[in-house]
Amino acid sequence: MTMAGTMLPKLAVAFGLAIMPIAASADPLPSWKDAASKAAIIAFVESVTDENSDTFVPEKDRIAVFDNDGTLWAEQPLYFQGLYALDVLREKAAADPSILSSDVLKAANAGDVKGVLAAGVEGLVEVVNISHGKITPEDFKAKSHQWVTTATHPTSGRTYAEMTYQPMLELLSYLRDEDFTTWIVSGGGIDFIRSFSDEAYGIPSWQVVGTEGKTTYGVAADGTPTITKNGGVTFVDDKEGKPVGIMRHIGQRPIFAAGNSDGDFAMLEWTTAGDGPRFGMLVHHDDAAREFAYDREGHIGVLIKGLDEGPKRGWTIVSMKDDWKQVFPD
Amino acid sequence: MTMAGTMLPKLAVAFGLAIMPIAASADPLPSWKDAASKAAIIAFVESVTDENSDTFVPEKDRIAVFDNDGTLWAEQPLYFQGLYALDVLREKAAADPSILSSDVLKAANAGDVKGVLAAGVEGLVEVVNISHGKITPEDFKAKSHQWVTTATHPTSGRTYAEMTYQPMLELLSYLRDEDFTTWIVSGGGIDFIRSFSDEAYGIPSWQVVGTEGKTTYGVAADGTPTITKNGGVTFVDDKEGKPVGIMRHIGQRPIFAAGNSDGDFAMLEWTTAGDGPRFGMLVHHDDAAREFAYDREGHIGVLIKGLDEGPKRGWTIVSMKDDWKQVFPD
Repeated sequence: MTMAGTMLPKLAVAFGLAIMPIAASADPLPSWKDAASKAAIIAFVESVTDENSDTFVPEKDRIAVFDNDGTLWAEQPLYFQGLYALDVLREKAAADPSILSSDVLKAANAGDVKGVLAAGVEGLVEVVNISHGKITPEDFKAKSHQWVTTATHPTSGRTYAEMTYQPMLELLSYLRDEDFTTWIVSGGGIDFIRSFSDEAYGIPSWQVVGTEGKTTYGVAADGTPTITKNGGVTFVDDKEGKPVGIMRHIGQRPIFAAGNSDGDFAMLEWTTAGDGPRFGMLVHHDDAAREFAYDREGHIGVLIKGLDEGPKRGWTIVSMKDDWKQVFPD
Repeated sequence: MTMAGTMLPKLAVAFGLAIMPIAASADPLPSWKDAASKAAIIAFVESVTDENSDTFVPEKDRIAVFDNDGTLWAEQPLYFQGLYALDVLREKAAADPSILSSDVLKAANAGDVKGVLAAGVEGLVEVVNISHGKITPEDFKAKSHQWVTTATHPTSGRTYAEMTYQPMLELLSYLRDEDFTTWIVSGGGIDFIRSFSDEAYGIPSWQVVGTEGKTTYGVAADGTPTITKNGGVTFVDDKEGKPVGIMRHIGQRPIFAAGNSDGDFAMLEWTTAGDGPRFGMLVHHDDAAREFAYDREGHIGVLIKGLDEGPKRGWTIVSMKDDWKQVFPD
């Protein structure tokens, strides 16, 4: 925790982000308007860090988990990892068209996202395997890091690294300043997120929980040991998989969980059902002008149950439009 | 890291162990004799923490991984987790003999370890499922913690919690003082080790990598969400599984690895094949008087390849007999 904290300024400069440590007297969440959501976050953090309070939580139990897509950075018009997979596929197909050996790969190469989605999970895995299979985790991370920091988003023109949410960067930093450990728990691929989590969020590779593919260990003829991503999926860290992934990687129940879609419902449910003080929050994408507006409909980030049941469960619904002064970093 | 460091004295007192923080000027490894192994460890640590050296390694990359059974605590006459499984089986069978529904369970109940081992991995899983299945991780950890801290070892008469190795506790503490993160990477069950890792070693639940069983998330009729261990094994964190488990949980290659058997060979091979300074060490059980003497033969902790190839690879072989002043804590 301290490590991530001390490295943060250096990395933040490298990434061009404004997530410097905050003096105790300063506003810890300057990009948040003085709305109910900001007050609720600060009240919760103060209640669990006050040693004289009944609601005090020791440092080792201050575990905060965050979904990534749509919670820490944008996810429209398609999960960025999906855009990455399509870019790599097109790059490889340009060099060797024979890799387009199926209808779903041809659809992907033509930019026909609906055609890919129509092929279901198997079709998606087939597309993803082109970029995510037969590669070492190190090479994969180097390649995806390069893409995240240089390729640009189709509508904003920003690099994907610049599509993180400034208020959430401040929230991560605030929680760490208060001796929380901050974790990503994402339906996205674990190695993809690890390629930028430290630079973008100050979150080290081992505090990323995500969907996992098959990897194997082998030793080459010259004695060099190698771990290889073989493609395919062995664990899906989404929906009911999120609490399972949390218990597998973290080994204890968080006290703070943030998400934005019904894929995060089980994670918030599990987190907030524990004893003692708990915080659940959902980022509501209601800002068509500055980001995107979507919730109950669409193919990504669908939020129905969370909107209907979240407030009854005491979860905080954060309106991007009304609660945030700024969406993306300067 | 700092968190584990600051919690350590409190927990050490609770566990009755002498692992207080060490002043920079004091000997960081007082239970180690002034032998080659101690000198090699200190030379390595000093080389990677010296900012003016070519061999300097930044804090975030100072990852040290430790096998548990036979490396951090004893493992004879049987892995302690196996003794725990047998104790729970006998306790349950005394209350309800009908659970002894197979030959392997009857053999286990009769203390016939050879009979259990003869039934292979399937037989072992059948025995382990009695204690490790149909239980929440929280209940399992409470029960195994109780056993580790109160049940006593058949020959030493110590509790299992008191069968950790004092020199290794000092090594863990020394590395953390030098801003390493310390990890357990064990063939043992992840939840079993998590039940005592923080108290015994100052290692939090999320820095334990181990063999994993199937767990599922569900919501009871009254709305209570529950995670349940269902028995069975989904990932074996042993041999070639150790580097895979490391990459899954930590996400980067360690620079320091310690083990004691050929089950750790791949972990040391993977660790020490990386670029820059690397340290591999094997604890050699050659002290029949103070602990146990075994290596090339037996059913636990077999060490053949490590003894034959380790020295050629630059790994440090630690003689418990010659290199340690003391084996167990006072």
